[in-house]
Amino acid sequence: MDNLKSHLLGLLRTRSPEYVSSEQVCKSLGVTRAAVWKHVQSLRAAGYEIEALPHHGYRLLTVPDRLYPEEIAWGLKTAVYGREVHYFNRVESTNAVARELAGRGAPDGTLVVGEEQTGGRGRLARGWFSPAGGGVWCSLIIRPPLLPSEVAPVTLLCAVAVRRAIRQVTGLDVQIKWPNDLLLEGRKVCGILTEMSAEIEKVNYIIIGMGLNVNIQPDHFPAELRDRATSLLAGGGREYSRCRLLQCYLEQMEELVARWMKDGLEDILAEWKQHCLTLGRQVVVSTVREQFAGVAVDVGSQGELVVEDRQGVCRTFWAGEVTLADNLPPLFSQVAP
Amino acid sequence: MDNLKSHLLGLLRTRSPEYVSSEQVCKSLGVTRAAVWKHVQSLRAAGYEIEALPHHGYRLLTVPDRLYPEEIAWGLKTAVYGREVHYFNRVESTNAVARELAGRGAPDGTLVVGEEQTGGRGRLARGWFSPAGGGVWCSLIIRPPLLPSEVAPVTLLCAVAVRRAIRQVTGLDVQIKWPNDLLLEGRKVCGILTEMSAEIEKVNYIIIGMGLNVNIQPDHFPAELRDRATSLLAGGGREYSRCRLLQCYLEQMEELVARWMKDGLEDILAEWKQHCLTLGRQVVVSTVREQFAGVAVDVGSQGELVVEDRQGVCRTFWAGEVTLADNLPPLFSQVAP
Repeated sequence: MDNLKSHLLGLLRTRSPEYVSSEQVCKSLGVTRAAVWKHVQSLRAAGYEIEALPHHGYRLLTVPDRLYPEEIAWGLKTAVYGREVHYFNRVESTNAVARELAGRGAPDGTLVVGEEQTGGRGRLARGWFSPAGGGVWCSLIIRPPLLPSEVAPVTLLCAVAVRRAIRQVTGLDVQIKWPNDLLLEGRKVCGILTEMSAEIEKVNYIIIGMGLNVNIQPDHFPAELRDRATSLLAGGGREYSRCRLLQCYLEQMEELVARWMKDGLEDILAEWKQHCLTLGRQVVVSTVREQFAGVAVDVGSQGELVVEDRQGVCRTFWAGEVTLADNLPPLFSQVAP
Repeated sequence: MDNLKSHLLGLLRTRSPEYVSSEQVCKSLGVTRAAVWKHVQSLRAAGYEIEALPHHGYRLLTVPDRLYPEEIAWGLKTAVYGREVHYFNRVESTNAVARELAGRGAPDGTLVVGEEQTGGRGRLARGWFSPAGGGVWCSLIIRPPLLPSEVAPVTLLCAVAVRRAIRQVTGLDVQIKWPNDLLLEGRKVCGILTEMSAEIEKVNYIIIGMGLNVNIQPDHFPAELRDRATSLLAGGGREYSRCRLLQCYLEQMEELVARWMKDGLEDILAEWKQHCLTLGRQVVVSTVREQFAGVAVDVGSQGELVVEDRQGVCRTFWAGEVTLADNLPPLFSQVAP
């Protein structure tokens, strides 16, 4: 959005639900009535409903359900995160774009967001269903002063941040499945994919990809996902503002990363554990090398999962796929919840 | 180099110092005498000295001091490392090119090599002097099955591999300064810059950038480096084959990485320690946050340096600049090495 259009939108928004007279707009923007009219038309084309009433002026009625940078910025209470936004109506993968931007020096807190991802990616090279307007598909570039070996907890932080944002905006309670899935009523509602670029002694950047299913109708999920995926709409029975969710997420992330850098992970890990449905459960952890069954007894200070088998042998996992195995007949023990 | 030219070179090389008759070459390449002549001219332009004698045929006299893929491949005893080579006469930074290639899927063992780097990079965003033909400036892409937190030792491996290669080709003994500098008579002869791209639960690729000063005359170093940098030529008093050094390095790296994956780091770390000049010495470690003085008492299993101060307090460093402080008057204690 160009500056004048953005300025006009800000003016209308500040005064809404009142009218702004045509004279005021012309004066504020320093352009002619004809130019103002052109910008109004352009905002309308972008989905803003603007009333134009003779002798009254202009009035903003509704804003579109879009994650435009102007919408994200409006009311955003962060210092850095999400202050630079790269917006796409359609994008193959926000993580891929973020990687490009980060490699070219995009600053800490840069956000890439798309209304739709045509090649959204999940963990372990899986896909992520990302239909137009259905959710928050975004990637956040952060540059904390860390060593590569210290990065792992960022996934925990992100899970806590999304959980808080969902709670704040919808009142819904989601649970965390190790390592980084958020579940609503046992089905996946959010996935997190973290990537980094680093030298041995410093992290260049971290990209936190986040896909949150917001307003997707249950029957719009592909058949193979229907049993395992859900959306906030499906769980809460109504639509929610994607923009508000994204803003809350950015605010929570900024707060949590700052706290992590300042005070360490302890409190955040405690909050994570409090909402983790993996701990204390019978699990099967599948890695590329093996399967290991036991009880998930702890999550360590870097986010690693500790599983104890029947013989009392403890194993620590940094990666892997967890199947919650209790309360399931053996036949189904391989199926993810 | 195109296939026919490469084939011709192979034929001449295999038969050297004998002649290969013109008929044989035509037959082997399946082309006319005129075409053969064109390829001979083209090889000559690339620096190969080829004798053409009526009634005898062609004979390879010398190969150029170039790191052409054909030169690297000739006699290389690796299975994977250096089998795919991206060669540049002049390149800004081999690491930057490798990053591009790795991002687009370049296979394990891909090598990027330049005769000259115009923007060679060292650790901590410093430069690396990389004049044309003066050394081995290369970046190796490897894809071992590791977690980001397991990558750090790759720098130790690389130091051991380069050390062995230098010993093998030149007989010179270099020492290792933590974390990743190789010193010859107290001056830096080789630097290593490792980068990686990873997700939380797996490494996508590691790039090992290596700059080895081979045939640089001492007075060709920039003035500000002259006291601290050296070359194998300066140390050994003669020129050495850059190609042979690179081959040995690739062979050693392939062997060491395989051993690391199979048997762990123990033996390699022992070899590293044996040639490390940091251990047992008074050091000052400078990081972005602080300076810490003490005795370098150990290097841990991931390559981390343990320093004990006079009060017996031990600190572990993953990153930082080490100044060797013993035997130096206090005035000079801040000067590396």
